[in-house]
Amino acid sequence: MYKLVLIRHGESTWNLENRFTGWTDVELTPTGVAQATMAGKLLKDAGFDFDIAYTSMLKRAIHTLWYVLDEMERSWLAIGKHWRLNERHYGALQGLDKSETAKKYGDEQVLIWRRSYDTPPPALEASDSRCERSDRRYERLSPDDIPLTECLKDTVERVMPFWNEVLAPSIKSGKRVVVSAHGNSIRALVKYLDNISDKDIVGLNIPNGIPLVYELDESLKPIRHYYLGDAEAAEAAAAAVAKQGKA
Amino acid sequence: MYKLVLIRHGESTWNLENRFTGWTDVELTPTGVAQATMAGKLLKDAGFDFDIAYTSMLKRAIHTLWYVLDEMERSWLAIGKHWRLNERHYGALQGLDKSETAKKYGDEQVLIWRRSYDTPPPALEASDSRCERSDRRYERLSPDDIPLTECLKDTVERVMPFWNEVLAPSIKSGKRVVVSAHGNSIRALVKYLDNISDKDIVGLNIPNGIPLVYELDESLKPIRHYYLGDAEAAEAAAAAVAKQGKA
Repeated sequence: MYKLVLIRHGESTWNLENRFTGWTDVELTPTGVAQATMAGKLLKDAGFDFDIAYTSMLKRAIHTLWYVLDEMERSWLAIGKHWRLNERHYGALQGLDKSETAKKYGDEQVLIWRRSYDTPPPALEASDSRCERSDRRYERLSPDDIPLTECLKDTVERVMPFWNEVLAPSIKSGKRVVVSAHGNSIRALVKYLDNISDKDIVGLNIPNGIPLVYELDESLKPIRHYYLGDAEAAEAAAAAVAKQGKA
Repeated sequence: MYKLVLIRHGESTWNLENRFTGWTDVELTPTGVAQATMAGKLLKDAGFDFDIAYTSMLKRAIHTLWYVLDEMERSWLAIGKHWRLNERHYGALQGLDKSETAKKYGDEQVLIWRRSYDTPPPALEASDSRCERSDRRYERLSPDDIPLTECLKDTVERVMPFWNEVLAPSIKSGKRVVVSAHGNSIRALVKYLDNISDKDIVGLNIPNGIPLVYELDESLKPIRHYYLGDAEAAEAAAAAVAKQGKA
């Protein structure tokens, strides 16, 4: 039996400011740091250990992983950083206040952008200073790989090659893998693993900073999954995520 | 012309406690964190940028690199961690107080262990709880690769394959490389680059947390090298290192 651990980054400054973040590279808050440290402590206390770690190109996920590994005395572990694990791209909404956006466009429209599977928000112009096509960290990518906006469907399609080409082979080779990523890149993995419908995946919320453990059989089908630590705390954290972005 | 930047980790808890550290995995002090952050700021202000970073398997060097990259807004950079960049192994002296050791064995003997090129301190027993052969981070190495003690000559011989197989090809491929490592693994690189004699290298001290920049020609011969920032501060820091371990 294999185990895979997924962790959504701790609270970020824009979670706190209630702004759409997407690929914007914002910091963890002190609460986010505490969540990440607690995640490492939970993993250590439950006897988890890892052979390799993966994360996105965004520092809220990278730093979360660093705090987790520090707490587990595994700072020396190899870490792969990949843009395919980045958060869903939020297009022209990136940087906007969620409540203000809801007031301007209406709760219903914002809920469609946030919670429909296949309706992306308005796209960023490539000339927009927020556009990541001129960001050095992505310079080795084809510009077409760098989204201007994404619906969750697009994020799933972006994440899946990373599962197929990196994560699945790594797990099958016997490596114990931890992934520190984002609400929607983790949703993409969970949707695939648990074969969740397009309709249902948009209602599934991943709490910040709580390790989500998948036990997988030899063909990498899930046997079960669970959050480490206090189940009620995990549920409350997920509910808090669901509430964001109402006017 | 190529550039290579070498950084010795910031002050560690055992630098402060004046204990022989070697492969023992001790933390940075708050001063060490400030030094690392300042190193990142110096590099950023001087317009340096990197394509890849290398460090050792020891957290004082890993964390130094993390602080440097954070300050440069390069947390997302790929980092290679390698045991060949570890500090010189200090054998049975690891964990002992430098002044106490000097009182016990005499300044002269300790100076020989610290500053002779080819006389190693007493070896650790493989059964010693301090021995790293049972440390999971080195489990993929042959036990013979994990030292029980080292003189500087041994460290040079351990570091050189990493130069030949990783650093030199990486630099020649056009990558801008930063290395966060240790006093003696950096000495090994400096000895090779500047063709310093066995006798002279033991008198060369690398200050903590100050970026050492090498400009290299196309065959990787040094054109010049310099410390970033205040030259007097770098000299004072190096002199402080030289003074350690006197009774």
